Amino acid sequence: MKEISYEILAQHGPNAKDKWTAIDGVVYDVSNFAHPGGDALVERLMGKDGSAQYSKAHPKDLVQKVLGMRVVGKLTGEKPKEQTSAAQGSSGRGEKPDVSTMINSFDFEAIARETLPDEAWHYYSSGADDEICLRENRAAFSRIRLRPRILVDVKNIDMSTSISGIKSSLPLYLTATALGKLAHDDGELAITRAAHKAGVIYMLPTLSSCTVDEMLAARAPGQPVFSQLYVNSDRSRTQAYVEKLAQSGVKGLFVTVDAPQLGRREKDMRNKFVKSTSDVQKGDSVKRDEGVTRAISSFIDPSLNWKDIPWLIKVAKGMPVYLKGVQCAEDAVLAYEHGLQGVVLSNHGGRQIDSARSGIEVLAEVMPALRSIPGYSPEKFQVYVDGGIRRGADIFKAVALGATAVGIGRPVLYSLASFGQEGIERMIQIFKDELEMTMRLMGTPTIKDINGKFVLPHGLTDVSGAAVRDFLQEATYEPLQTQAKRVGYSNSRL
Amino acid sequence: MKEISYEILAQHGPNAKDKWTAIDGVVYDVSNFAHPGGDALVERLMGKDGSAQYSKAHPKDLVQKVLGMRVVGKLTGEKPKEQTSAAQGSSGRGEKPDVSTMINSFDFEAIARETLPDEAWHYYSSGADDEICLRENRAAFSRIRLRPRILVDVKNIDMSTSISGIKSSLPLYLTATALGKLAHDDGELAITRAAHKAGVIYMLPTLSSCTVDEMLAARAPGQPVFSQLYVNSDRSRTQAYVEKLAQSGVKGLFVTVDAPQLGRREKDMRNKFVKSTSDVQKGDSVKRDEGVTRAISSFIDPSLNWKDIPWLIKVAKGMPVYLKGVQCAEDAVLAYEHGLQGVVLSNHGGRQIDSARSGIEVLAEVMPALRSIPGYSPEKFQVYVDGGIRRGADIFKAVALGATAVGIGRPVLYSLASFGQEGIERMIQIFKDELEMTMRLMGTPTIKDINGKFVLPHGLTDVSGAAVRDFLQEATYEPLQTQAKRVGYSNSRL
Amino acid sequence: MKEISYEILAQHGPNAKDKWTAIDGVVYDVSNFAHPGGDALVERLMGKDGSAQYSKAHPKDLVQKVLGMRVVGKLTGEKPKEQTSAAQGSSGRGEKPDVSTMINSFDFEAIARETLPDEAWHYYSSGADDEICLRENRAAFSRIRLRPRILVDVKNIDMSTSISGIKSSLPLYLTATALGKLAHDDGELAITRAAHKAGVIYMLPTLSSCTVDEMLAARAPGQPVFSQLYVNSDRSRTQAYVEKLAQSGVKGLFVTVDAPQLGRREKDMRNKFVKSTSDVQKGDSVKRDEGVTRAISSFIDPSLNWKDIPWLIKVAKGMPVYLKGVQCAEDAVLAYEHGLQGVVLSNHGGRQIDSARSGIEVLAEVMPALRSIPGYSPEKFQVYVDGGIRRGADIFKAVALGATAVGIGRPVLYSLASFGQEGIERMIQIFKDELEMTMRLMGTPTIKDINGKFVLPHGLTDVSGAAVRDFLQEATYEPLQTQAKRVGYSNSRL
Amino acid sequence: MKEISYEILAQHGPNAKDKWTAIDGVVYDVSNFAHPGGDALVERLMGKDGSAQYSKAHPKDLVQKVLGMRVVGKLTGEKPKEQTSAAQGSSGRGEKPDVSTMINSFDFEAIARETLPDEAWHYYSSGADDEICLRENRAAFSRIRLRPRILVDVKNIDMSTSISGIKSSLPLYLTATALGKLAHDDGELAITRAAHKAGVIYMLPTLSSCTVDEMLAARAPGQPVFSQLYVNSDRSRTQAYVEKLAQSGVKGLFVTVDAPQLGRREKDMRNKFVKSTSDVQKGDSVKRDEGVTRAISSFIDPSLNWKDIPWLIKVAKGMPVYLKGVQCAEDAVLAYEHGLQGVVLSNHGGRQIDSARSGIEVLAEVMPALRSIPGYSPEKFQVYVDGGIRRGADIFKAVALGATAVGIGRPVLYSLASFGQEGIERMIQIFKDELEMTMRLMGTPTIKDINGKFVLPHGLTDVSGAAVRDFLQEATYEPLQTQAKRVGYSNSRL
Repeated sequence: MKEISYEILAQHGPNAKDKWTAIDGVVYDVSNFAHPGGDALVERLMGKDGSAQYSKAHPKDLVQKVLGMRVVGKLTGEKPKEQTSAAQGSSGRGEKPDVSTMINSFDFEAIARETLPDEAWHYYSSGADDEICLRENRAAFSRIRLRPRILVDVKNIDMSTSISGIKSSLPLYLTATALGKLAHDDGELAITRAAHKAGVIYMLPTLSSCTVDEMLAARAPGQPVFSQLYVNSDRSRTQAYVEKLAQSGVKGLFVTVDAPQLGRREKDMRNKFVKSTSDVQKGDSVKRDEGVTRAISSFIDPSLNWKDIPWLIKVAKGMPVYLKGVQCAEDAVLAYEHGLQGVVLSNHGGRQIDSARSGIEVLAEVMPALRSIPGYSPEKFQVYVDGGIRRGADIFKAVALGATAVGIGRPVLYSLASFGQEGIERMIQIFKDELEMTMRLMGTPTIKDINGKFVLPHGLTDVSGAAVRDFLQEATYEPLQTQAKRVGYSNSRL
Repeated sequence: MKEISYEILAQHGPNAKDKWTAIDGVVYDVSNFAHPGGDALVERLMGKDGSAQYSKAHPKDLVQKVLGMRVVGKLTGEKPKEQTSAAQGSSGRGEKPDVSTMINSFDFEAIARETLPDEAWHYYSSGADDEICLRENRAAFSRIRLRPRILVDVKNIDMSTSISGIKSSLPLYLTATALGKLAHDDGELAITRAAHKAGVIYMLPTLSSCTVDEMLAARAPGQPVFSQLYVNSDRSRTQAYVEKLAQSGVKGLFVTVDAPQLGRREKDMRNKFVKSTSDVQKGDSVKRDEGVTRAISSFIDPSLNWKDIPWLIKVAKGMPVYLKGVQCAEDAVLAYEHGLQGVVLSNHGGRQIDSARSGIEVLAEVMPALRSIPGYSPEKFQVYVDGGIRRGADIFKAVALGATAVGIGRPVLYSLASFGQEGIERMIQIFKDELEMTMRLMGTPTIKDINGKFVLPHGLTDVSGAAVRDFLQEATYEPLQTQAKRVGYSNSRL
Repeated sequence: MKEISYEILAQHGPNAKDKWTAIDGVVYDVSNFAHPGGDALVERLMGKDGSAQYSKAHPKDLVQKVLGMRVVGKLTGEKPKEQTSAAQGSSGRGEKPDVSTMINSFDFEAIARETLPDEAWHYYSSGADDEICLRENRAAFSRIRLRPRILVDVKNIDMSTSISGIKSSLPLYLTATALGKLAHDDGELAITRAAHKAGVIYMLPTLSSCTVDEMLAARAPGQPVFSQLYVNSDRSRTQAYVEKLAQSGVKGLFVTVDAPQLGRREKDMRNKFVKSTSDVQKGDSVKRDEGVTRAISSFIDPSLNWKDIPWLIKVAKGMPVYLKGVQCAEDAVLAYEHGLQGVVLSNHGGRQIDSARSGIEVLAEVMPALRSIPGYSPEKFQVYVDGGIRRGADIFKAVALGATAVGIGRPVLYSLASFGQEGIERMIQIFKDELEMTMRLMGTPTIKDINGKFVLPHGLTDVSGAAVRDFLQEATYEPLQTQAKRVGYSNSRL
Repeated sequence: MKEISYEILAQHGPNAKDKWTAIDGVVYDVSNFAHPGGDALVERLMGKDGSAQYSKAHPKDLVQKVLGMRVVGKLTGEKPKEQTSAAQGSSGRGEKPDVSTMINSFDFEAIARETLPDEAWHYYSSGADDEICLRENRAAFSRIRLRPRILVDVKNIDMSTSISGIKSSLPLYLTATALGKLAHDDGELAITRAAHKAGVIYMLPTLSSCTVDEMLAARAPGQPVFSQLYVNSDRSRTQAYVEKLAQSGVKGLFVTVDAPQLGRREKDMRNKFVKSTSDVQKGDSVKRDEGVTRAISSFIDPSLNWKDIPWLIKVAKGMPVYLKGVQCAEDAVLAYEHGLQGVVLSNHGGRQIDSARSGIEVLAEVMPALRSIPGYSPEKFQVYVDGGIRRGADIFKAVALGATAVGIGRPVLYSLASFGQEGIERMIQIFKDELEMTMRLMGTPTIKDINGKFVLPHGLTDVSGAAVRDFLQEATYEPLQTQAKRVGYSNSRL
């Protein structure tokens, strides 16, 4: 292979005729390459070694598959010194606190916000449109109140439960989230290992930073995992992927059904537009520039429908199949009738439909509908909930309303970003401490003791609360003022 | 009478054995005088000419009645120059805007807040306890929505109505408020004159700064006025007062029944305590120091009850008698049964019971109860509302819910404080402009056209809104914070 | 015609005996001219070339009609140099971002707020009274939640629909808004052209800055437009106007019925009062000075009523006639019974009755009433909604609740002000992107698939939320404070 | 005993092999002592005289019992001068206001916040998890409105009542709170004395700073007190303690049943982590470090259950026994059926289950359930409420809803911290003033006159209000912003 120095590579930048980039030592010609996430994503790699940025967002082997025909040569020589990014540099702030001082899941989020580069922080933290759903996911839990019982022997608390027939140390699993390496170089591998240590199940994402083989290899002996699935327009690719999972002993397949298109997440979109780009991207071309989100979603098949379910069950070869992203009772019942093993009530972390209800609110609609089906039992068809779980008490509330377990996503990414694998372990430990305390104070020594009599959900559907705060309207609305203020007469006392 | 110079007077301050003060040129010995509002009120006048402070809060002739036995002599000589109060001095603020630039009732309040000394501002603006009721009075109106009708001929709008049989230019009167001179030297006289010019009725207060004779004399020929009444423990004094009103042609007597004791208004109380007074006023003596409020209320008879009503009607000698301060349907019905002419639904401007409902909310309870009485008609028994009326649309809402008219209090004081009589006139004109616009846009050309079909009051009883904001809890509560913030790690981005 | 220099003109200012102004090169004597919007509007043009200010607010040909009898001569010579206005000057702010970086409708509003002079910004952005209705229009949509369905084939999304029998690229039209040139020199012409490019219908305003002929001429061949109508007290003028519209092929006539008088919009009114005008405008004369709003509204006939409807239908000569500004079920039913083609549920952008409900809330009342009429069908009688639509999801919600289409007003003006015609196109494109995404994620590939089962409107009538925030009360209310704070004891920690 | 100088002691710090501390002149070896509150609590005393810190949190005689076997010698010589703590030093703030200027219970809290060291302030003021319950306790009262009656003779107001058969000057008692010396050196002794002076009952805490003998000895002759009880895993210790109480004439035993484990109070927990302690306390060991809370709770028996009640009644030897911490109707009924004398509806000051309801809300559920029991009477079985009582009107509301009396906790600690015994007296006097005013204005001259007709509790269960504000989410959530703001274009006007 032709040897190409950094100097030569630099001559093939975005304004050159032949535009090159290097990934893991191999130089590719990307001159007319149409990246599904928009040209800008490729443009900034041109003339440079793009390995670091590439690896944050893609499995290692993808570049070879996609750009294998465009290899120019191999990169050689010394990398020129650059100014290191100031993004994470010392900016007069204090020392990063120790992981042992984290006492709730928000602590990790605050660290992550400081630690992550903007692109990653905004990709992870953003929600759809006005982010009302994102905030509502959290707020909904605070509208459910608890009715503790007294004088129950709560000396011994047993939080363990069975999730899809698998033992879990508490009714919680780590749900699939895309692009773990944006948080930490260990990415999904650290999550896999932390899950094992904590005795919880991890749901491997389709849109991982690590390859599926790497993730599967990271399992401890006998460690159970689930897998999340985006169905590809090319069904044969999906079939191959699912069959690999089945062969590898994956314990459950969670098919994402709430994302035929990924939502508009404006914080993520904004990162495309740091500078005014007045000469390009005008007119109809704008849809190409929608940040990380757009870059990773183009292959999801929007035509997937109920008729595809038998095929999915077939290719799963015995793995239990679940639908992830159910948002009303009718669809939960349909899932039951189609022979699936359960559903995850989820709005995709508030990232899809901004006016969607929280999973926990949907749960209150779904359970009565399921229970009214003759022969229904939670053992045959399980209901999971994710979105907004930040406290042990939230787990209790979900279980009380009928959920088998809850999934957590962002807390995993934030604790990973803050302290790596150790952060995830600490974060799960906090959930355990909180749930144990909640169960003890509620008078419910085991998971089976928890039921609907312990919760007061009547405020759950109330939508007038703080979550509906409209930041964009606040940013543009000019409040009324008095004449005294307007003419500067009231600056003395007001 | 013995001549006493300012120098001699100054030797009789609060630490002297004989403590003197001068009021309107006469020097009195106030050594052991027990002021109903607390010793502090007298103490600060000792050794000084107290005329200015005295006249703000008392009728001219009161000092002679109360201290006539303690005259020491008459004040002579030149008043020594003092540093003028900086309270209203130029403090870098802009020029006071012209009265013509006031376009809503809040504009006057903002000016008054700047113009008034603290003592007056806090006396007028304060409410009971946490001032939730004070704010709720305003908020309640915003929870009533309107249903405008279209394609009605609204070329000519007639806002005039009849209040207690008297013509008024709109369904609004100026309600009684204490101590008008705290706002402006013309006090109640300016209000009387403005009411005439605007074609509205003024309800003369018992606790006026001007004497009742002065107020009555300020009437234009034929100008109708009402009078508010606090019943004195000494019934003969009340009888004499009421008979004078009747003889002077006062058109209605409004007996205040919501104030057997005046409420705790903390802003007003605080003004007693500018400095730490560590050596006096400890232990049980604290109740004596409760600001302007306490000073003026001590003579109100707390034993007044329903059995006194026949006597009141008798001494009113034909004047219609109303109860002011009714707050539930039962008492409105009792008033009707006792032969009274009507009631004012009022919580005393939020100054008495902090958890009381707004008058407009009580109206929605009272009207159905009255209408269910066989033979009831609004002509025989009228219902008024005060509290929180700041917009023409508020008048519309009250009338739609069944009120004959509304009373306004603080807007009168604030416009008086800002611009004197002219301010009040401008303020009423704004109410007229707003009501005319509202009636035109609602499709109701006359007052009689307004009824319950034009309002949506279903949100009226909702108490979860902004009005319940708890400022004292906010002032003492320390919000939770993340560890990152606590140790200074997050100062770079958050 | 007599030649008049700038110097001579300058001698005929507001204090001269003969007061002149020049419009488009012609000098007029405006000495005793009574402008319907108040003297101040004319006064500031006296002694100057008023062309620029005139043209913002009036059609070109109006001055000739109104002041044709008062021509003094023609303006000649060189315009003297003036200091350019600092209003829009460089004030240390950053560069204006490119149109391609706009990703939601609020982005345009934020740019417009910076770009527009105060007079225009306040005229466009203001609402009636406390602007609760203005904000509620937006907030109402956030209280409607969505119930997405899954596993529907949403590969192809078709947003197109029929509005009043006319094809539209999505269920949205550009509603009539007054005085487009305040936003941009191209005014209504730019809007007309952008509507064509985007495949949507524009409703031409009566109170346009361009003449109706100019607007009609700006249409592309075959481009359908609607026209909004204010009925003039002089019915012959209205008749002539409507007949011209009919002859010009206008596809629908929308008669505004919610504005027999324009509302009090205080931000707009304030612009009259920058300086204290202490010597003029006192007393009753104040009503003359109410900003742009007052200036343009004086000719609207407040006596228009249901009896005029047959005449309107007649002069429309076959154009479908709609009522714009209906706010309750009764009036929608009356419109149906009077043979009209439909109604727009609208509160005039929150600019008329501050306590009015949002159009979307009224829709939930109107549709059941209409559907209960035997023989009613949405094809025969269409219902539109405007007010507060800022997201594609808002369109979805309105359609789900029964609307044929929605109108947008301020987003058009703000995008026009920010980037001219291109801004409007971009803004509509964003609505399309958002609606397409919403339809895909909701599982509704065509407009016909959208129905009431997809929405949860139970929170719609809840009025306790953020929208009722009372800025004027906040501006005047002084919160309670603790004694520790008051005396400065708590400055160390609180 | 061996004499040990301060210098020698200092050589036995946390890094020495033999770790010593001195308490009250005695030096102990604490090398491997496992403090129930975590090692850190002991570590900071090593090498020092720990008397001051010890005495804040423990009864005097405890150290001898626990460390009696580890005595090393006695401390001699002069204490070396240290820099005095800056915590309470002069930091430019104003003078502490006089106790006479306190006019509501919040005033004391604001002083306490300034006066207390962080450890004490956070221990007292903290609540569980997100402190929603803590704030809700206060907010719940503001959602109950009052219906005052008029024209009742309210000259004489009698607030006195009977609590558990004992005369009290008002329906209020001082509830048990732990560690009074953290507030003031006089600790529980000052509270005991203030209770006597004010004519109210004090409930002695188990977790007191003073010994139970000291507290009992501080009683005035004939002064009635209650005692709170945490049941120890070692039942014989509890039995001995209770028998001592019974013999000492304690009038009622309140068994705390809502704290089988003390809650997670994060402000308290944070005080363990001022510095990053990166080398210790990792992994599973974290549960040992949970502040004051953890340190004092380890001996509470979590296995206590209904079967233990007969034993408790037996060992109480005739003292009435109550359950403190009941939170639903079922448990109140069970308490009645188990022969107890009553219950305290309490959520432990918001310190246990963050989603718990306020006591006052639970009261509205409990009273109807009790009243439906045949033969139930409030004399036989009393219901008390604590949590969030800060105003006299709150007492009125609780009594109106059926409570016999209310307990106050933090106001006692805060007034004690601010001004010692005198502060508590003043604070109770304010409650009396407020309750007297409330009863007068409500038209209820005696406690017996108060009933459910005077309250409107329909908003009590509404959970959408201000109390649910989520400070941690606010601390981590990044609000959306417009592009104009993001690129600095809008800094001129916004």
